[in-house]
Amino acid sequence: MGILEKINSSADIKRLDDWQINELCREIREFLIENVSRTGGHLASNLGTVELTVAIHRVYDTAVDRIVFDVGHQSYTHKIITGRRDRFSTLRQYGGLSGFPKPRESDDDAFVAGHASNSVSVALGMAKARSMAGKDYDVAAVIGDGALTGGLAYEGLAGAAASGEPLVIILNDNNMSIDENVGGIARLLQKMRVKPGYISFKRWYRAAFAKIPGLYRFNHRIKEWLKSRLLPGNMFSAMGLSYIGPVDGHDVSKLETVIRWAREMREPVIVHVLTQKGRGCRYAEEHPELYHGVGPFDPETGELLPAGESFSEMFGKYLCEFARRDERICAITAAMASGTGLDCFAREFPERFIDAGIAEGHATAMAAGMAKQGALPVFAVYSSFMQRGFDMLIHDVALQGLHVVFGIDRAGIVGSDGETHHGIFDLDYLSAVPGMTVLCPSNYAELRDMLEDALFRINGPVALRYPRGGEGEYKLSPRAAEHIVRPGKDLTMVAYGTMINEALSAAELLSASGISAEVIKLGSAAPADFSLTLESLRKTGRLLVAEEVCAAGCVGRQIMAAAVSEEIKIKAAKLLNLGRGIVAHGGRDRLMEDHGIDACSIARTAGELCGR
Amino acid sequence: MGILEKINSSADIKRLDDWQINELCREIREFLIENVSRTGGHLASNLGTVELTVAIHRVYDTAVDRIVFDVGHQSYTHKIITGRRDRFSTLRQYGGLSGFPKPRESDDDAFVAGHASNSVSVALGMAKARSMAGKDYDVAAVIGDGALTGGLAYEGLAGAAASGEPLVIILNDNNMSIDENVGGIARLLQKMRVKPGYISFKRWYRAAFAKIPGLYRFNHRIKEWLKSRLLPGNMFSAMGLSYIGPVDGHDVSKLETVIRWAREMREPVIVHVLTQKGRGCRYAEEHPELYHGVGPFDPETGELLPAGESFSEMFGKYLCEFARRDERICAITAAMASGTGLDCFAREFPERFIDAGIAEGHATAMAAGMAKQGALPVFAVYSSFMQRGFDMLIHDVALQGLHVVFGIDRAGIVGSDGETHHGIFDLDYLSAVPGMTVLCPSNYAELRDMLEDALFRINGPVALRYPRGGEGEYKLSPRAAEHIVRPGKDLTMVAYGTMINEALSAAELLSASGISAEVIKLGSAAPADFSLTLESLRKTGRLLVAEEVCAAGCVGRQIMAAAVSEEIKIKAAKLLNLGRGIVAHGGRDRLMEDHGIDACSIARTAGELCGR
Repeated sequence: MGILEKINSSADIKRLDDWQINELCREIREFLIENVSRTGGHLASNLGTVELTVAIHRVYDTAVDRIVFDVGHQSYTHKIITGRRDRFSTLRQYGGLSGFPKPRESDDDAFVAGHASNSVSVALGMAKARSMAGKDYDVAAVIGDGALTGGLAYEGLAGAAASGEPLVIILNDNNMSIDENVGGIARLLQKMRVKPGYISFKRWYRAAFAKIPGLYRFNHRIKEWLKSRLLPGNMFSAMGLSYIGPVDGHDVSKLETVIRWAREMREPVIVHVLTQKGRGCRYAEEHPELYHGVGPFDPETGELLPAGESFSEMFGKYLCEFARRDERICAITAAMASGTGLDCFAREFPERFIDAGIAEGHATAMAAGMAKQGALPVFAVYSSFMQRGFDMLIHDVALQGLHVVFGIDRAGIVGSDGETHHGIFDLDYLSAVPGMTVLCPSNYAELRDMLEDALFRINGPVALRYPRGGEGEYKLSPRAAEHIVRPGKDLTMVAYGTMINEALSAAELLSASGISAEVIKLGSAAPADFSLTLESLRKTGRLLVAEEVCAAGCVGRQIMAAAVSEEIKIKAAKLLNLGRGIVAHGGRDRLMEDHGIDACSIARTAGELCGR
Repeated sequence: MGILEKINSSADIKRLDDWQINELCREIREFLIENVSRTGGHLASNLGTVELTVAIHRVYDTAVDRIVFDVGHQSYTHKIITGRRDRFSTLRQYGGLSGFPKPRESDDDAFVAGHASNSVSVALGMAKARSMAGKDYDVAAVIGDGALTGGLAYEGLAGAAASGEPLVIILNDNNMSIDENVGGIARLLQKMRVKPGYISFKRWYRAAFAKIPGLYRFNHRIKEWLKSRLLPGNMFSAMGLSYIGPVDGHDVSKLETVIRWAREMREPVIVHVLTQKGRGCRYAEEHPELYHGVGPFDPETGELLPAGESFSEMFGKYLCEFARRDERICAITAAMASGTGLDCFAREFPERFIDAGIAEGHATAMAAGMAKQGALPVFAVYSSFMQRGFDMLIHDVALQGLHVVFGIDRAGIVGSDGETHHGIFDLDYLSAVPGMTVLCPSNYAELRDMLEDALFRINGPVALRYPRGGEGEYKLSPRAAEHIVRPGKDLTMVAYGTMINEALSAAELLSASGISAEVIKLGSAAPADFSLTLESLRKTGRLLVAEEVCAAGCVGRQIMAAAVSEEIKIKAAKLLNLGRGIVAHGGRDRLMEDHGIDACSIARTAGELCGR
């Protein structure tokens, strides 16, 4: 690690010669494999962008210029070379480095990232603010071809084209988002990848005119005409964006030259860069999809720990089971077939499986169209990404009461991906959707039963909300909106989903100190039926509701309001949840402790409610 | 009205000869002007699509085929010729015809509409469901060039291109959305409008090969090659969609031919139609923006009733005032500059004004980028359209606590635009956003003071929520989170925004029957401070909260929960709001009565709470 250990900023990178740059890239790859094999994290995408990131630092000073990473899981190299190498072993751990760009972590991180397709809009806003304030720093967005399938990116590109703002948009085209890239945009990029070399023409053209000052600029119109001859029409130029590329994304010197050109054009420019996911690591090159986001692995062989059973996997399995008996069932994903467990469905029912790309709004509206014409669409999507489809849930699905089933995966705390990925707003936005039923399976048996109910017994929009990971100790499926899991007399304790395990453990702890908690499990969060809970409250007079959601979406408030309406005398009550909704990254257990919703904290609070 | 009165279905249209078709179009225009001048509604867009709609009915049977109108305010001709002519005088009135397509109104309306850019996704879903079920009806989407600025449309187009589904996408290009069209997509369409005639070539080509059966189909590859020579590269073909156009949108016979071709291609096809907004009506042709959505007017001269003062207008005015003293302030609209009152800002500060197109997500993310770099962006947007930017509110604005100000216009019941346009979900989704402040001005004075606070005194994201229309009797600006507007002892009545006027009237009615209501006005809905309210409740023991929001977002539940936490004994309580959130179209007063939130209903309910 001779060179890397002396690199702490863009300036340090700029001092290196060509040989040192190549050596640095080699060292970064070694560092990445060694570290990610221990911490887990995103491997393939980072191995693919080592040279690109180094080239960006050759051109820009990231402490001043604003580089907006899209999604941001490809920002490891950037972190390593901007003073965070020593802390890299803490990646994605509680209190450690975030796996995504984070301005609070470093001024070199221009903006938060985590969700896809926002980078062009954000960078455009920054460029506008820069120009308005009369400053002269540079702004660039780094966006993958996968993120380009999102409509937000298109809105940003259209806005950038119209603005004329100096802005460089670096398209990191690895021909593969997390799952296989889909749709017209993929086809478009495929054509462009084999386009003849505009770059080499431009290099010649520039060199030829460079010696006559001013001419290069005055010849803009000729340049444009020549460009239009050399570049087959592509979407970007059709929108009015200048386009340069494609360029080899593993050649730092070429990248540097091209990004510098783009910057000097003082207008919105797309630089099309071709990279290879997993570059320089045999197993990651061969199976980039396996090494996208990984847990710890063997750095020599790439051997991964076998993944345990999960709600996602079981959801896919049960959906296949029901799809065998009902031909109307089809499954939709927004570029997350394996993450949501739908890969088995895609294999068994390819003609009834749709990957909509990173386009949750489109997936939702399309599902509504399908349901209107008699199909039975099931859209499996991460809770925090479904936020993109909120309007379509209301406008396209709910206003007509259409029967679309949503598998809301990664609900609650997700752990190391952190604040952009926690699924803690869903109960809030889902319960506002007219006629929406929200079911909260607490284990696999309930997941199956509730999916069956959602498909065949409930009308209108239905969401099943389940967490990342697997089930706990509690395995029953009482098939009821409310169920007394453990009777008691001193306190009414309400929970749903896998949180029931914490509640039961807390009740066990309480019984040791002589407190008898009645534990009630809710099967659905909307529409809410609290009759058993209220009956219990009449008896105990004390309420504790423990939830893995933000305060605004918590069920506890509804229970309290219902208690007031029913004129039930409550002696003491406490709602435990994730408050105003920013939850850090780190281990799930630790985060639950932080928010007081682990078994011990629940027991402690319950004890206080009971005057202990 | 000789011909029109015999037309009640697609079949009737198909029976007419060329002369009759022209006469029918003339009669429809006359009918539209006469009726809309009485009822108010969307004029210019409907006058522009008379021939297009008639041509669609020549080709399709809308009772069986599925025609998905985007936005849907251009569906009047469709309604008139599918059996709803006699009810047209009830347009947009309570219990009358909706101003948008509505399947509950007629089987000829394939899908709800109101929000922009969803039609391609919906139509694609329908086409997929059709193919999966082995049926053979046709599916088409009708989308304007304005709606094409929305990223959702792009996601839909990409999905359609990838699917290969037989699907016709009719692009109604009038070169003007509600406000002037912006961004790269507008530039693209502009270029395509002047493109040489592919159509006439195709007509010749078809005629030439028609006599040799099978050859036309076999020559597909030749056709594609020829097309690529004749059609300059455009975005649609680059994405892999077949493209036909542009075609004169006021020539029924040409339109019919082209749409038929498109249908017969059995693949996703874009038909590019050029129309003129306001066509055939002098004043509407000259000022299509004035006659987009109108109240009643003089059908001869076009003279409109002068619009009264409104929250929107005052918002724009006050924002200009503050922008004069702070150069960081800039204003953003999503294609609604006049609707949100920002037109004056656009005139006075053109370099600090941004129209993002119909792209609320992009507008929000861009505002976040601006705020991160020190600008002070204000995004004025209709409440129901802001739903499109929900994820960006959380991800781009809130997670970093960025200071972006949102003018949430059309909050609450909007009246005749109906269920897709009511702004009744905002308090729910806004209060979930971490660190969001939601201010609820009840009159212009408060709007000004709260805008000043939002700009200069509050950190992080701030929303001001104000209704369509103007202020009421209550004109004070107490500048407080809670304020006792009218003291009393029997009952605590809570309201905010213009609803305070209903609450005060109700209190007046109650006093006549000897009930003394204490009326408390909330200044902000989040973060909520209920100390005065709870103090009042301790005294009265009775609570009534009247709100113009859906139940899930109501503040009343929070007050009840706070009362429980504070162990306040409540004898009786009632939350009045819009329940599960589907509110019909019609007059505001009538809709408020329906939901029991007008002064009389509030007084009646309050009386019941007090045992009268």
